[in-house]
Amino acid sequence: MSILIRQVLLNNKPVDILINKNKIEKIASHIPTALSDEIVQAEGKAILPAFYNMHTHSPMVLLRGIGEDKDLFSWLQNDIWPREEKLTGEQIYIASRMAILEMIKTGTVLFNDMYFFMDETIRAIDEMGARGLISCVAMDLFDPKKTLQKKKDMAHFIQTPCSNKQVIKTIACHAVYTVSEELLLFSKDLAQKHNTYLHIHLAETEKEVLDCIEKTGLTPTKYLDKLGLLTPKTILAHCVWLNDEDQNIIKERGCLIAHCPISNLKLNSGQMPLNTYLKKGLKVALGTDGASSNNALSMFSEMKVAALSAKGESHDITAAPVSSILKMAHQTPAEFLGLNAGKIIEGALADFIFVDTHNTLTHPLQFLDSHCVYSLDSSCVSDVCVNGRFVLKNKNHPLENEIIDSFFTLTESFF
Amino acid sequence: MSILIRQVLLNNKPVDILINKNKIEKIASHIPTALSDEIVQAEGKAILPAFYNMHTHSPMVLLRGIGEDKDLFSWLQNDIWPREEKLTGEQIYIASRMAILEMIKTGTVLFNDMYFFMDETIRAIDEMGARGLISCVAMDLFDPKKTLQKKKDMAHFIQTPCSNKQVIKTIACHAVYTVSEELLLFSKDLAQKHNTYLHIHLAETEKEVLDCIEKTGLTPTKYLDKLGLLTPKTILAHCVWLNDEDQNIIKERGCLIAHCPISNLKLNSGQMPLNTYLKKGLKVALGTDGASSNNALSMFSEMKVAALSAKGESHDITAAPVSSILKMAHQTPAEFLGLNAGKIIEGALADFIFVDTHNTLTHPLQFLDSHCVYSLDSSCVSDVCVNGRFVLKNKNHPLENEIIDSFFTLTESFF
Repeated sequence: MSILIRQVLLNNKPVDILINKNKIEKIASHIPTALSDEIVQAEGKAILPAFYNMHTHSPMVLLRGIGEDKDLFSWLQNDIWPREEKLTGEQIYIASRMAILEMIKTGTVLFNDMYFFMDETIRAIDEMGARGLISCVAMDLFDPKKTLQKKKDMAHFIQTPCSNKQVIKTIACHAVYTVSEELLLFSKDLAQKHNTYLHIHLAETEKEVLDCIEKTGLTPTKYLDKLGLLTPKTILAHCVWLNDEDQNIIKERGCLIAHCPISNLKLNSGQMPLNTYLKKGLKVALGTDGASSNNALSMFSEMKVAALSAKGESHDITAAPVSSILKMAHQTPAEFLGLNAGKIIEGALADFIFVDTHNTLTHPLQFLDSHCVYSLDSSCVSDVCVNGRFVLKNKNHPLENEIIDSFFTLTESFF
Repeated sequence: MSILIRQVLLNNKPVDILINKNKIEKIASHIPTALSDEIVQAEGKAILPAFYNMHTHSPMVLLRGIGEDKDLFSWLQNDIWPREEKLTGEQIYIASRMAILEMIKTGTVLFNDMYFFMDETIRAIDEMGARGLISCVAMDLFDPKKTLQKKKDMAHFIQTPCSNKQVIKTIACHAVYTVSEELLLFSKDLAQKHNTYLHIHLAETEKEVLDCIEKTGLTPTKYLDKLGLLTPKTILAHCVWLNDEDQNIIKERGCLIAHCPISNLKLNSGQMPLNTYLKKGLKVALGTDGASSNNALSMFSEMKVAALSAKGESHDITAAPVSSILKMAHQTPAEFLGLNAGKIIEGALADFIFVDTHNTLTHPLQFLDSHCVYSLDSSCVSDVCVNGRFVLKNKNHPLENEIIDSFFTLTESFF
């Protein structure tokens, strides 16, 4: 299956692009029609790499907007946890579809997810054609009787093969303050045995760090490192509160940091020193976190706030330049995952979006990279291609009506 | 002329709304068709107050994205000022239309503007039907020979009547470090004589404050107050660096602060302590500033960053709650301007937007106020009504093609 894209703008010049299976095969000013099975006319659209959202809890779109501006624990205890406890698999499926639709419409084609009933999220991906790193979250410290059952569930989830090549099953531990040492070690072994990624919240709040030091004598980073959880396949969400030594360990181990600046500000967790980490050469990607602490799943907002927050935190107007922020949104996570993506070049994976230049937010076209970080929003995204297949065409998603309607029906009874 | 809006969602319940001339006359579960000249079907749309952008330089959309991440003075000297010097009236007109289109599409119906060739911006408003507070900016310290000419220009601009009732001509002074005492006093007298608003940048950077203290022995706020420029008709943009006494003076004088959190972070000016100001009872509205330091003109992004920045700056998760942020975006500036707006009630001015709930970003519908601050973007705005007249209908603006095309043609030769 090959697709010929006609006259799309690449670096503000119109080109033809030939997609063969899931790769960008050829880019040229003109490519003969004979080479392709399908033609996509793209005049007036610009092509950009698609985004990879490296930390989220996709079904939490269901809890978007509830209990705003409350003290953190009152919000969790009164608004979030009681509702999460009652969630069913079907509800997770409905919410996951809504989240994936929202991500596609904001140009995101891959998300690294951590929640419950994740087979339902995989079912949603199967239908909608995104990419996902999917894991059922390990958490047992609040109820130690659950450790054994959790182990069985995790082993069952990771051992069951997934036929969808765009899904990678991963292992997720919630955090050092919610997961027992026993379950952390079990998770590490399971991830190693299945050669997959390990996903964990780390050093999100100062309290997490102080409590861990009090309990173990070590920072959360050193504690995880002692247990052997920090490897080139580990994804660390947040990392707001790392000392110098923690930063060096994470750099040496080759872990990926998923920076979630909006969530960190909204929940008053603190501001991650992005400028420092980038200068040190740490691998930093971006994540939206769940929609209940953001409250969107848009990598456009995340890039903008990442740049603003980095300049504010470092008091340096030159911090977090456009090119660095863009890399965090696609190229860095792609490289970490061993994917040749995050750039529109021959041989790269066909994960890309078209931006409709018939939109004020894309102008002046000469500075589209800057607009991608600071101006664009979902109204600009017209087409999204994942792994060589268009999942959004001319702003239309075939399941949009059905997905929004079923979500609406769910929320009418849920609240 | 009366318009009957059928079954629009108000606080998540469908109602009919009758607009008579420029006011909301009646809100009821059912209003007979006989009462109206025109019917607007609004099933599946929610009504919200429109936004008032209290500080911008609209034509700067033309310079959006140029010279990102540079040191402030290198950016101004190499990228901005040389291009501003060559601007023509026709270019200002083309850029103003583009900015107004962008504002309408993000739900903003009023903007408080300060730039050059502002008759051209008024011409754009005449065509497009927004509201504007419009002023030609006074600035003479870099070239004292200009003071006299500037006085003549300002007097001419303010004396020339404007037939458009949605335009208020105002007086603008750039800042204490760019305007001579002579011109500041002249501006004050001119504003008083014409009973209009005075618009000025104040305490945007720490350097501005320190330099003013060195030169005059007073903070910029006390200096302006000594000259008599602080009145209930004064709009102060930025106000990042106010001490306690400055804050008290501004509160006592009844000035409006136009808070521009995105610009302040992007240019590394600092973070205005919004939480402190709100607790003290200062009048604070929002402004996007110009598109070259934002880089959008969206009040949605501005509200989101205002909330995030306030929580981050005050280290308080309860700071800048949704209701306060929304007020800053419409009710507070409306009250300051003596307009009965910023709320959807009988008797209020018909300045409102419809949000299309057929959009993931608006769900769960139960928490639409929160989504307005944290999730919505331009893709959600379907209709915009200014002063009883729809200027956007079902996402269509009659001049959209023409405006974007002429802007595109301009930028091709401009850069």
